[in-house]
Amino acid sequence: MITPEEALSLIASSVGPLPARTVSLSEAEGCVLAEALTARLDLPPFDNSAMDGYAVRASDLAGASREAPVSLRLCGEAPAGSPSALSVAPGDAVRILTGAPVPVGADAVVMQEKTEREGERVLFFLAPSAGANIRPRGEDVKTGAPLLSAGATLRPYEVGLLVSQGIASVEVVPRPCAAVLATGSELAALGVPLGPGQIYNSNGPALGAALRRWGVTVRDLGTAPDDPGALETALRPAVGTCDLLIVSGGVSVGDYDYTRSVFQKFGFEEVFYKVAVKPGKPLLFGRIPAPGGGRAAWAFGLPGNPLSALVCLEEFVRPAIERMRGMTLAQPSYHLRGRALNAYPLPKDRQQFLFCRARPEGEGFALEVIRPQGSAMSKMATGANALAVARLGMGVVREGDLLPFRWLK
Amino acid sequence: MITPEEALSLIASSVGPLPARTVSLSEAEGCVLAEALTARLDLPPFDNSAMDGYAVRASDLAGASREAPVSLRLCGEAPAGSPSALSVAPGDAVRILTGAPVPVGADAVVMQEKTEREGERVLFFLAPSAGANIRPRGEDVKTGAPLLSAGATLRPYEVGLLVSQGIASVEVVPRPCAAVLATGSELAALGVPLGPGQIYNSNGPALGAALRRWGVTVRDLGTAPDDPGALETALRPAVGTCDLLIVSGGVSVGDYDYTRSVFQKFGFEEVFYKVAVKPGKPLLFGRIPAPGGGRAAWAFGLPGNPLSALVCLEEFVRPAIERMRGMTLAQPSYHLRGRALNAYPLPKDRQQFLFCRARPEGEGFALEVIRPQGSAMSKMATGANALAVARLGMGVVREGDLLPFRWLK
Repeated sequence: MITPEEALSLIASSVGPLPARTVSLSEAEGCVLAEALTARLDLPPFDNSAMDGYAVRASDLAGASREAPVSLRLCGEAPAGSPSALSVAPGDAVRILTGAPVPVGADAVVMQEKTEREGERVLFFLAPSAGANIRPRGEDVKTGAPLLSAGATLRPYEVGLLVSQGIASVEVVPRPCAAVLATGSELAALGVPLGPGQIYNSNGPALGAALRRWGVTVRDLGTAPDDPGALETALRPAVGTCDLLIVSGGVSVGDYDYTRSVFQKFGFEEVFYKVAVKPGKPLLFGRIPAPGGGRAAWAFGLPGNPLSALVCLEEFVRPAIERMRGMTLAQPSYHLRGRALNAYPLPKDRQQFLFCRARPEGEGFALEVIRPQGSAMSKMATGANALAVARLGMGVVREGDLLPFRWLK
Repeated sequence: MITPEEALSLIASSVGPLPARTVSLSEAEGCVLAEALTARLDLPPFDNSAMDGYAVRASDLAGASREAPVSLRLCGEAPAGSPSALSVAPGDAVRILTGAPVPVGADAVVMQEKTEREGERVLFFLAPSAGANIRPRGEDVKTGAPLLSAGATLRPYEVGLLVSQGIASVEVVPRPCAAVLATGSELAALGVPLGPGQIYNSNGPALGAALRRWGVTVRDLGTAPDDPGALETALRPAVGTCDLLIVSGGVSVGDYDYTRSVFQKFGFEEVFYKVAVKPGKPLLFGRIPAPGGGRAAWAFGLPGNPLSALVCLEEFVRPAIERMRGMTLAQPSYHLRGRALNAYPLPKDRQQFLFCRARPEGEGFALEVIRPQGSAMSKMATGANALAVARLGMGVVREGDLLPFRWLK
């Protein structure tokens, strides 16, 4: 049995980014860029007006003011989106709209509010400096300059920048595909009536919902009974075709626990088995190598109890997914601290995750530890908004103890 | 021109949750529940074993210990998923697996590690209390008891609970559908070469990427030139069929700004126009009533500059979306504070959003305000990881000033 820190460190040192793939921009959002990109276009691509007003030669308006306005001849209009066929000679002004190319000869734009139209002439109440209200070509990006580095996360801002460069597809670290299987002879699928001794397979849908939130494409393999042949048959289609295999149940050391032995039939290279956490001790992690022509996968065996499965998914599978997606965690998961409002007994040999109701109190937070909390108590967990950690060796949570926690979103 | 606080308060008081809709569980994740649910099943649905071991009558093992073990007759096995046909008579023990129904007559389970098998008999080294290691029927949920309240957010935990109750579809506040249109005669679609005076429509894809992150279904209407007829034609298919209309561009007071007048052709009920923020002053918000048989929509006119559009989307459209989805903001958006590392001039009459590079420093954060930051500088924004706020009336940011900020994720 290893500590949770050891397990996380083994995950971090084993799992790396998935091989890069070229995808269209609409698929790329939220992914990490796998290539360095160079600018193909100047941005803006031409000198353009930052506002509605008049394009002028700044030298024509030297000394202009409200008291001593200068009049120029209006010789045309430059709307946005049109080629700039006009030119501004000394004494001329051109009506210009936001985003329109600045006509040849003009070197400043005077905003509309500082002018007055008089038929075919315009009065100016302001002496602009050269370059005023003009966004010069290449101000933001110059052709050939570095645009984005490999490793950049493609947020909406990056998507916008890529489109403005005319870039329609990019090489990214792709989203992983995960196959999810729940094993247990007692499991029935939603939609059929429960037989005696049966319960519904809630792990498949709950794990799938969480994985989808993290950008994972999910293949739900349904359920398999406590039978090694049936488990192998259910898993086989996912081996070589998914990046991540997740089986809930069958990972203890009981007579009917086959997850580990079935992983081994697929050449499982075990990284660890059993982590000192509660809920969740029987946690299994390793690699299933690529069969001929297929892809290798990381495989997790999660405990079968619903809360154990979901807690282990977030604490251990999610970091593996972030590694597969090429991400680095910007923030520690448990950077918030809260003061326990009640006592809670702890296991001697395991770190305990505690379902809590957290609320702001003073400068910090108060944590009501929900009692009791069994790892099969699905309803109990829906009353929690936070998960706190009681570290190994703490012995017992006492009223007033300060515990790290994270929100359960 | 109203303040950003006034704008947010008008959005909060105008926009309410979309009408509830019944959806399957796979669509419901992340949504707010629109109905109160009552439990249909006991959970667990039957008394079952919390571990692998032996089901016994606790009274048979009174006084059992390592020194004075008690021997019982092994009379069968109760695996998970099978109807419990067995019964435990005095002097009997039944092998039982985790999750299996407890046989009639048994009232405790002794874990395997506290026993020793001797052929057809089992030695017990421990005297269990009645109920030990048994999860009693209805421990977590009792049939007829409240299960989830209207207003609960359906996280993976709630999805799991609903499946375990055999509930396959629920009434939720649905995800909004948004139509996005970029207007401007200078806009070209990705994939075609740029003509003179043209730029690519980056707002459509960038706004769409952000909206999808927030659970919105996006219909991209592409672009429309600065022409009222063309704008009306481009928008018409979305009127009555979407919950949210978003137009970027054409919202200033220039000769070629038609967004407001075209909204008016659809019966626009204006809530506000112009907010004292930079970037983003010309922000337009109101309601377009339901045409015959269709649905009403909230409509936003966003400024056309890429950063103005994205900042206004997150600051003003996102709160509207959260209201439409029935959510309440749990945390204030700007609860972090950082110390400015450099000075920055501010507009007199508007609150400024500042693109920054934030990093931890001591107990808090340091903020490098990026200079310069124009509202069309898409590349500049990709270098920022935080957006800070300089409140109205602040005059200027000085080195050392403490500014509220949020991460740009």
